[in-house]
Amino acid sequence: MVQQYSSALLEKAVGEFSKLPGIGRKTALRLVLFMLRREEGDVDQFVDAIARMKREVKYCRVCHNISDTEVCPICSDPRRDASVICVVENVQDVLAVENTQQFHGLYHVLGGIISPMDGIGPADLEIDSLVQRVAAGGVKEVILALSSTMEGDTTNFYISRKLADYPVKLSVIARGISVGDELEYTDEVTLGRSILNRTPFNQ
Amino acid sequence: MVQQYSSALLEKAVGEFSKLPGIGRKTALRLVLFMLRREEGDVDQFVDAIARMKREVKYCRVCHNISDTEVCPICSDPRRDASVICVVENVQDVLAVENTQQFHGLYHVLGGIISPMDGIGPADLEIDSLVQRVAAGGVKEVILALSSTMEGDTTNFYISRKLADYPVKLSVIARGISVGDELEYTDEVTLGRSILNRTPFNQ
Ligand SMILES: [Zn+2]
Ligand SMILES: [Zn+2]
Repeated sequence: MVQQYSSALLEKAVGEFSKLPGIGRKTALRLVLFMLRREEGDVDQFVDAIARMKREVKYCRVCHNISDTEVCPICSDPRRDASVICVVENVQDVLAVENTQQFHGLYHVLGGIISPMDGIGPADLEIDSLVQRVAAGGVKEVILALSSTMEGDTTNFYISRKLADYPVKLSVIARGISVGDELEYTDEVTLGRSILNRTPFNQ
Repeated sequence: MVQQYSSALLEKAVGEFSKLPGIGRKTALRLVLFMLRREEGDVDQFVDAIARMKREVKYCRVCHNISDTEVCPICSDPRRDASVICVVENVQDVLAVENTQQFHGLYHVLGGIISPMDGIGPADLEIDSLVQRVAAGGVKEVILALSSTMEGDTTNFYISRKLADYPVKLSVIARGISVGDELEYTDEVTLGRSILNRTPFNQ
């Protein structure tokens, strides 16, 4: 049932909040009313932070992780091991792996996963740029840290084919994570262990 | 564990989202990354709707409901019965009662409920202005539609004392809603029935 608000301004704000994933109209209304109760300055801060991020954020031109600079802090950190690249689906997964504190190499963010059902093919992902990084030399190992799903397996297989001609060790994170689990929701202990126990990739 | 983001802009936006009630850092990150994937224009619309609402929204000077105008559309609707006032805790409750389509009078939004534990006393609420509306005449009935909690009971009792000297019928919504239930979460059928079955208020 569509609610009739006594204010078109409120209506509009609720409508905008309910466009966000997982936010229904009831939650949207709660968030909007919370905004109304806040100090003007706090609301300005909220609004500015989002507008500014949208306008100014960049994607690292090496690993495609989110960054404020052309090359992200991870890629430009000399203490990180540039000879190991961990391939992940998205930005959340970089955070998930970083939180394990078990990985000290660099990343490569694909920006998705091969999914014919969703019309996402290899060309939609940052796979060519991964091959280029490996082709440029200096990379000894590529760790595939994708979700343990059919799409993850398909993407692993596709990447393994693309890297077959290069002298690089290819490994996948250990299947300590249950089959069907999304990487992002895996607890950090399990995920950390599965990185330590990574195994050579066999097609 | 505090996550280390590769972007201070992202960090700030996630921080702002996680200040909202019921939004943890994981959900905040999800919302922020959704914002990043959206069209620039869509993000502008989101941001503008909130900023504008915060700047321009008013509270009806009669009933204290949210409004774009000095007097809200409900109070200024000549088809509504101005002789019956339904007293509710907050703006959500106006929507909840409106959705039942069982009430055609006017509202009075207290802006809270008496709660000594939270330091909220009668003076913090729009109780005096309710008494003034009744004192001004023309009001035949005041329906108390507060939550069926100890705080609701306390507030009902306080209001009944304040209105004791006026020739107005005082009723409470029927306790069809279970004791301890928040009004806002009551389904509309139950809430509608409890308004139809309202009973005289006995101290
Ligand atoms: Zn990078
Ligand atoms: Zn009004």
